[in-house]
Amino acid sequence: MDVKALLEAVRDGNMGIEEAQERLKELPFEDIGFARLDHHRQLRKGFAEVVFGPGKTCEQLSAIFARLAKKSRAVLATRCTKEQYEAVQKKTPGARYHEDARAITLLNEPVAPIGLVAVCTGGTADIPVAEEAALTAELFGARVERYYDVGIAGLHRLLTVLPEVRRANAVVAVAGMEGALPSVLAGLLEAPVIAVPTSVGYGAGLHGIAPLLTMLNSCAEGVGVVNIDNGFGGGYLAAQINRLAGRKPEERL
Amino acid sequence: MDVKALLEAVRDGNMGIEEAQERLKELPFEDIGFARLDHHRQLRKGFAEVVFGPGKTCEQLSAIFARLAKKSRAVLATRCTKEQYEAVQKKTPGARYHEDARAITLLNEPVAPIGLVAVCTGGTADIPVAEEAALTAELFGARVERYYDVGIAGLHRLLTVLPEVRRANAVVAVAGMEGALPSVLAGLLEAPVIAVPTSVGYGAGLHGIAPLLTMLNSCAEGVGVVNIDNGFGGGYLAAQINRLAGRKPEERL
Amino acid sequence: MDVKALLEAVRDGNMGIEEAQERLKELPFEDIGFARLDHHRQLRKGFAEVVFGPGKTCEQLSAIFARLAKKSRAVLATRCTKEQYEAVQKKTPGARYHEDARAITLLNEPVAPIGLVAVCTGGTADIPVAEEAALTAELFGARVERYYDVGIAGLHRLLTVLPEVRRANAVVAVAGMEGALPSVLAGLLEAPVIAVPTSVGYGAGLHGIAPLLTMLNSCAEGVGVVNIDNGFGGGYLAAQINRLAGRKPEERL
Amino acid sequence: MDVKALLEAVRDGNMGIEEAQERLKELPFEDIGFARLDHHRQLRKGFAEVVFGPGKTCEQLSAIFARLAKKSRAVLATRCTKEQYEAVQKKTPGARYHEDARAITLLNEPVAPIGLVAVCTGGTADIPVAEEAALTAELFGARVERYYDVGIAGLHRLLTVLPEVRRANAVVAVAGMEGALPSVLAGLLEAPVIAVPTSVGYGAGLHGIAPLLTMLNSCAEGVGVVNIDNGFGGGYLAAQINRLAGRKPEERL
Amino acid sequence: MDVKALLEAVRDGNMGIEEAQERLKELPFEDIGFARLDHHRQLRKGFAEVVFGPGKTCEQLSAIFARLAKKSRAVLATRCTKEQYEAVQKKTPGARYHEDARAITLLNEPVAPIGLVAVCTGGTADIPVAEEAALTAELFGARVERYYDVGIAGLHRLLTVLPEVRRANAVVAVAGMEGALPSVLAGLLEAPVIAVPTSVGYGAGLHGIAPLLTMLNSCAEGVGVVNIDNGFGGGYLAAQINRLAGRKPEERL
Amino acid sequence: MDVKALLEAVRDGNMGIEEAQERLKELPFEDIGFARLDHHRQLRKGFAEVVFGPGKTCEQLSAIFARLAKKSRAVLATRCTKEQYEAVQKKTPGARYHEDARAITLLNEPVAPIGLVAVCTGGTADIPVAEEAALTAELFGARVERYYDVGIAGLHRLLTVLPEVRRANAVVAVAGMEGALPSVLAGLLEAPVIAVPTSVGYGAGLHGIAPLLTMLNSCAEGVGVVNIDNGFGGGYLAAQINRLAGRKPEERL
Amino acid sequence: MDVKALLEAVRDGNMGIEEAQERLKELPFEDIGFARLDHHRQLRKGFAEVVFGPGKTCEQLSAIFARLAKKSRAVLATRCTKEQYEAVQKKTPGARYHEDARAITLLNEPVAPIGLVAVCTGGTADIPVAEEAALTAELFGARVERYYDVGIAGLHRLLTVLPEVRRANAVVAVAGMEGALPSVLAGLLEAPVIAVPTSVGYGAGLHGIAPLLTMLNSCAEGVGVVNIDNGFGGGYLAAQINRLAGRKPEERL
Amino acid sequence: MDVKALLEAVRDGNMGIEEAQERLKELPFEDIGFARLDHHRQLRKGFAEVVFGPGKTCEQLSAIFARLAKKSRAVLATRCTKEQYEAVQKKTPGARYHEDARAITLLNEPVAPIGLVAVCTGGTADIPVAEEAALTAELFGARVERYYDVGIAGLHRLLTVLPEVRRANAVVAVAGMEGALPSVLAGLLEAPVIAVPTSVGYGAGLHGIAPLLTMLNSCAEGVGVVNIDNGFGGGYLAAQINRLAGRKPEERL
Repeated sequence: MDVKALLEAVRDGNMGIEEAQERLKELPFEDIGFARLDHHRQLRKGFAEVVFGPGKTCEQLSAIFARLAKKSRAVLATRCTKEQYEAVQKKTPGARYHEDARAITLLNEPVAPIGLVAVCTGGTADIPVAEEAALTAELFGARVERYYDVGIAGLHRLLTVLPEVRRANAVVAVAGMEGALPSVLAGLLEAPVIAVPTSVGYGAGLHGIAPLLTMLNSCAEGVGVVNIDNGFGGGYLAAQINRLAGRKPEERL
Repeated sequence: MDVKALLEAVRDGNMGIEEAQERLKELPFEDIGFARLDHHRQLRKGFAEVVFGPGKTCEQLSAIFARLAKKSRAVLATRCTKEQYEAVQKKTPGARYHEDARAITLLNEPVAPIGLVAVCTGGTADIPVAEEAALTAELFGARVERYYDVGIAGLHRLLTVLPEVRRANAVVAVAGMEGALPSVLAGLLEAPVIAVPTSVGYGAGLHGIAPLLTMLNSCAEGVGVVNIDNGFGGGYLAAQINRLAGRKPEERL
Repeated sequence: MDVKALLEAVRDGNMGIEEAQERLKELPFEDIGFARLDHHRQLRKGFAEVVFGPGKTCEQLSAIFARLAKKSRAVLATRCTKEQYEAVQKKTPGARYHEDARAITLLNEPVAPIGLVAVCTGGTADIPVAEEAALTAELFGARVERYYDVGIAGLHRLLTVLPEVRRANAVVAVAGMEGALPSVLAGLLEAPVIAVPTSVGYGAGLHGIAPLLTMLNSCAEGVGVVNIDNGFGGGYLAAQINRLAGRKPEERL
Repeated sequence: MDVKALLEAVRDGNMGIEEAQERLKELPFEDIGFARLDHHRQLRKGFAEVVFGPGKTCEQLSAIFARLAKKSRAVLATRCTKEQYEAVQKKTPGARYHEDARAITLLNEPVAPIGLVAVCTGGTADIPVAEEAALTAELFGARVERYYDVGIAGLHRLLTVLPEVRRANAVVAVAGMEGALPSVLAGLLEAPVIAVPTSVGYGAGLHGIAPLLTMLNSCAEGVGVVNIDNGFGGGYLAAQINRLAGRKPEERL
Repeated sequence: MDVKALLEAVRDGNMGIEEAQERLKELPFEDIGFARLDHHRQLRKGFAEVVFGPGKTCEQLSAIFARLAKKSRAVLATRCTKEQYEAVQKKTPGARYHEDARAITLLNEPVAPIGLVAVCTGGTADIPVAEEAALTAELFGARVERYYDVGIAGLHRLLTVLPEVRRANAVVAVAGMEGALPSVLAGLLEAPVIAVPTSVGYGAGLHGIAPLLTMLNSCAEGVGVVNIDNGFGGGYLAAQINRLAGRKPEERL
Repeated sequence: MDVKALLEAVRDGNMGIEEAQERLKELPFEDIGFARLDHHRQLRKGFAEVVFGPGKTCEQLSAIFARLAKKSRAVLATRCTKEQYEAVQKKTPGARYHEDARAITLLNEPVAPIGLVAVCTGGTADIPVAEEAALTAELFGARVERYYDVGIAGLHRLLTVLPEVRRANAVVAVAGMEGALPSVLAGLLEAPVIAVPTSVGYGAGLHGIAPLLTMLNSCAEGVGVVNIDNGFGGGYLAAQINRLAGRKPEERL
Repeated sequence: MDVKALLEAVRDGNMGIEEAQERLKELPFEDIGFARLDHHRQLRKGFAEVVFGPGKTCEQLSAIFARLAKKSRAVLATRCTKEQYEAVQKKTPGARYHEDARAITLLNEPVAPIGLVAVCTGGTADIPVAEEAALTAELFGARVERYYDVGIAGLHRLLTVLPEVRRANAVVAVAGMEGALPSVLAGLLEAPVIAVPTSVGYGAGLHGIAPLLTMLNSCAEGVGVVNIDNGFGGGYLAAQINRLAGRKPEERL
Repeated sequence: MDVKALLEAVRDGNMGIEEAQERLKELPFEDIGFARLDHHRQLRKGFAEVVFGPGKTCEQLSAIFARLAKKSRAVLATRCTKEQYEAVQKKTPGARYHEDARAITLLNEPVAPIGLVAVCTGGTADIPVAEEAALTAELFGARVERYYDVGIAGLHRLLTVLPEVRRANAVVAVAGMEGALPSVLAGLLEAPVIAVPTSVGYGAGLHGIAPLLTMLNSCAEGVGVVNIDNGFGGGYLAAQINRLAGRKPEERL
């Protein structure tokens, strides 16, 4: 018995008030409005569905991808090998592989990107993580510009691109080793900086712990940090902020 | 000689092109436009100036506070003792002490708060950090609502306030011990969640490292993390996002 | 409008089915059965209410304690100073201070203790944590026996008390330094062992991290670990298991 | 000379009291009752014998497994590869491989499962560890229900299964990444929660240290933690508690 | 009934063999020879009894000390304050305070020291820990020579004392900061080196973790390490080895 | 429009002062003198260009190497496999592989080495890192002497080479395990010691963290530390100091 | 010019006292007696030469081994693969491979083993490290008895072998996981216990850090700890102590 | 008998060659030239003697200081309280207290400072450590310029002072929190950068571990790191390099 049937029974006098109250408590949550909890999730998923590649066999991944491909505007599979892509591609011919980002995407209904997210890296070795961030932000609706290899060891490169970066609603700053790029950027920009530490480096880099700590201790305000190598998380958060900046005033509180 | 004088000398034929080029390179950076680097900083500071209290004597703090009080719309001094406040209050009678937040504020020109930032805590012990976040967000222009003691150990409390929290442009989630509040919120909300771990707890809480790791490993997307006990950083980032959401469309790219 | 009024309106034809469905979704959770989430919590609280002492002023603690004392069978305040107790005692004369456990208790309605929980310590310095565990287990309904200073450096002491310890439904093993007591006990007992590491020790004890790791790596099965110095958590879990052992068969699934 | 012979010699006057006393002290421990130390162990082993697979060659494992298979009601080999299984299966045809759990089991004498243990996971990647826990609990006599992928990022899924989970005597909560599932469950349940952190995750997950810390710092009481990825330990402890709940009253103290 | 009575009952025909066997298993361990487990402990304690000062009130410590003083050749109380000493001295007038070592000793029956233990320190700040080691070794029967401030930063000082140090049966090497003294000594000596890291230092010294790691990674063989600041443990182990070296050949296997 | 054209326009009256000022601010930094920021970098690069091998495909590395080979006096590629070298060698026949150092070098214009840098190792396993340091120092202009396997476990070897090492302007001390070599050297030498910890060792060596901490805690002054296994960094810093020592007096301040 | 020639020149009047003094300072250290520093090392090496296998090619290892085989009573190569052995065996036919210990040994001149070293392990997985310890102790002259799989989870096994273990001059206790074996042994034995933590275990075992910490925090005195998996170091230290115990009285101080 | 007497005995025929050889080996090291080991140390100490204040009583410190004041050109006592200074000042009236640096200095014979060392800080809270560095460099003979509060959060301040900083022979870069200043400076400068992390910060700053890691992972070459808060070590190393740069060419190799 679902909520509607229950209410009809009450209306029609087939169920007493007390029994109805009791029954309401027993109904699965989704039947009495709790699905609402996941309401905005569906809205977001309207943008894209995401799958995490590692640990899934080619069969599993291609099956999941194909299922999502049917009901979603866009699909993103992160951290996939080329072999996983080839399996996906057989079942979902429109899927595309992004070698740098190690990601598979499918875009069923392109929409016009809005706003601007800038994705910056300290070095070239940070590019795979940055590409994951950029792809994610694009699939979740953002226009994205990339500024790679602008780390603090060669400050002039960073200063050269600064005027362009300044136009973004949110900046994803990806860096390994000493990880100081987000701090420097936050000191120079008005927009929020999403800091993504990478495991690039060795020794006292501690597989990314060193840049993570650097970013958490930023003496410039306006820096939010995500997990090591979490390009997806960084891109998602930036797209979320960018979308917020893009909301029409009447949608605002 | 500044840039203007230099250009006039060129115009008037008092300096050759080559010499002018050479001189430009030698000028202090601020004279050739580099002060621009700090331009947006001044704009932001238009909102509020911030002082970090610890390690400053009463004399030092009250002097700095008084100087900032003269030129700024608002002043915020964080992590101050009551003794520091009393010294500040003597020189700047309008200053107010917020005992919970351990903060001193001065508001010279109140402006109408915009948007909405929600500040939530897991427990009552997290309130000092949360108050620092809330005060910061308010001073930087945001309307703020507080939802305290809504941690995951009593999930019904959290679910009860959820509809209200959902209206915020950005949510600051402050939690110690296991620090799972930001993850749970991010799974239920569309807005970005700024996660602030606190040093509340003991033993394996490792002075806040445990909730910090929890927040960085959030399996719900849309979480940006700041340093342990960094209420100021969390409130600032939320206000920054909230302001972005409040920009008029024609201000957008 | 609460659920009952809503259902009556439906019954009386004053509200359509669709509107009622919509309204149900908007009602605060507690009104539509969600309070049930906390139902068993109230049942447990029927045993005892717990307050965490540190960080609370004497005024705050005595007020909270007095409020709980009115509606609860028993009240436990953990990690309290003698000064906090004196403040509590003024408002709640029946409150009693346990110096070893640094705890304040009030017992409004004594009930007959059931089953058996054994609380063991490695050394004498672990006794404060053990006493917190023992008091907690008692307040939550368990009969408790204490076996202190039976650590592995003097194995004969441990073996001497073994026959008695073996009769318990659950054993709380409290130990600092190398923290091997729970492993040794679990190898000798049929009952579950709740391991409580303490911060007793110095240097490479790392404030309790060393015994915590020891306990997590127990090569004997049947050990569940709680946080460092968390006597309350250990005593609670043991009492929970002991109560389970005490359930009558017809209460079982 | 064993104890019996010694006592007979005393009875028959062939040995003096003093000499007998002296001899008793010299006898190997097992001869004077010490085997009793391992008495309950044999009882438990009556349920199942356990072998740890890693580091053993196919030959070693299959030999050990075959030997145990002869004298035990059930045998469990954990963390085994498919190759190890194939070797085992040759010598012990009745052995069965559980691919998800990476475990080999043999069940010589099925017994009716008792009580109820619920095994929950945060995500799908935690399933191998959860399956190890579930299999272990089953082999040690418990009825087991599985609730997978009910992590806190999608709270509605967890709430949906809550009424069923609530019926268990003990709950095994398996989670990686931020590892908040046990805390949330403990806040909603009356039964003890056995928390099993997994090494699922990356970067600041620190190979499972992050969820381990989360679980140790649970602000909800009633959580006992085992080692990272230790599904066996979690399942064993839950079965132990479940069996306790299943004891008949006259077996209780 | 004790073992003797039991054997007599068997001898006199008042108890059957089977019943006697059964009873033996039930007797407390100490009654059937298990006290033997602690036999050698008593022998060692014949040298000295040891109390750990921290966490004990003046009353507790002085009472324990007085009790041990009655039955033991020597008493050592480690890590004691001067106030603790004054309390001890009132009840046990012969007690002596060693300010450097923060130790209280009582020597009821002096015995001739045997062999030689050398105690070396890297710097002057390591002396308190070294004095604790030296006093301990002396109380447990060793002749002790002290070589302080012979750290590796001034290698010539170390080389100067080397010929003397070489005569020791065991060497205690106490060092903080980089903690390289034990390695250097072990490379130059035939005797075992007991390495005692100290918490002397700051920053990356990590309260003694740095020298502890150094000592564990010694590339010279012949180094055994004890806990940070554990002068007692180092002195005890050295005295133990020294005593072994002092055993007469016929006592050896 | 570049700076020269802008100034000419001002001179010729084709651009007003205010517009020129505004335009200057907008010009890319490199056009208004900011390239100066990187001026000394080019000078240094005049010595050698450096590429980091790991993570680059053979194609990428050989292409980058060939490009640098055209414009630079010397090229150094660090941490390269033999396969990478073979690819490089095809495009740049003059390239040479240094198996010990895992480095590829090209020397277009040999210059006379100056000064003296000594490179010492504790053991033979540290040689690859030391060779990277030595090669780097040589390519950046230093005369280099190697003293390998002179660790502190065999102090006489170290003392034997001391008189030679003492002649160096800077000493690179490479050591794993307990990593005490730099401290001992700094206590014996007047020259700065650049300490390079290596990941040689196991267990509590923590992949090089142990010697890193040792070096940071050196009780001898005059030690600067670089990252674990960072032979390049150590060699570069030593060459930098050596070059400074080689500057003619009139170049000095 | 060596010392003898110098002294002869002085004697013969060919060199003045002052010049001779000056020359003495300049002589390489080995020429003026410093080789003495390594004197006892040669004596020890008289027992056995040791090579560390990892990182050496088959060619390198077999060459080193062959060279040592010519001049030494015994040779030990630790942590070697079977392939390394096969290469060694070709050049040194008498070499023998110990698969458990992963060691190669050559015994040119067997000597009668003296004293007694006991080598114990907690589990079977610790045997490779224990075998390395046992082989080392044997090659350095000790009689060795092995007691494997006597860990604390099955205390009766340990107690059974205790009387035999008690006869040893030194005990090597090898254990992973919780690593409590050395503590338990030290509480029961008079002899020094050399504790060797192993990397056996997983998760919170932290590759051997957990048992290492356990051993350093032993509440029983008389425990010296070596690096994780350092069977060689443990066996060497035990043999060193055993030899000391074996010294004739007239060799003692 | 010293070396001279020995040689005279040889010369005079009172001692044979062999006996002289033997005696030489037995002489204390300092007598046969080993004091030379500390030769350069005396030269350096010619600049200044250094005492570490913490842990010394006022009496101890003032006595040591007075003794050094008699024989040395300059004396530096680091990390001293004002009370310690007052005690020192009584015995050594010329001593001066530097409140910022928490240091006491005495300058008996001023010498003209040479070269240039620049000391920079990220923030104002780093000044105490920086002042310790600056004072140290000055006492060891360097001319020093201070550039404080030029951290990367306000990059324009750093760029403004860059031309001046560029003239230094060595730069000490002192920074806490994210600690990125040394990296940024090394990317912009030709001179070596000595990086001094400070414990300024909180939470994930881990008492200075975060900036320490940042500095060790610098992606700009030319950075040598010292211990956290080790201003003395940083200043010493910079002065050492500066002195090297100041050596006259004929003093060079």
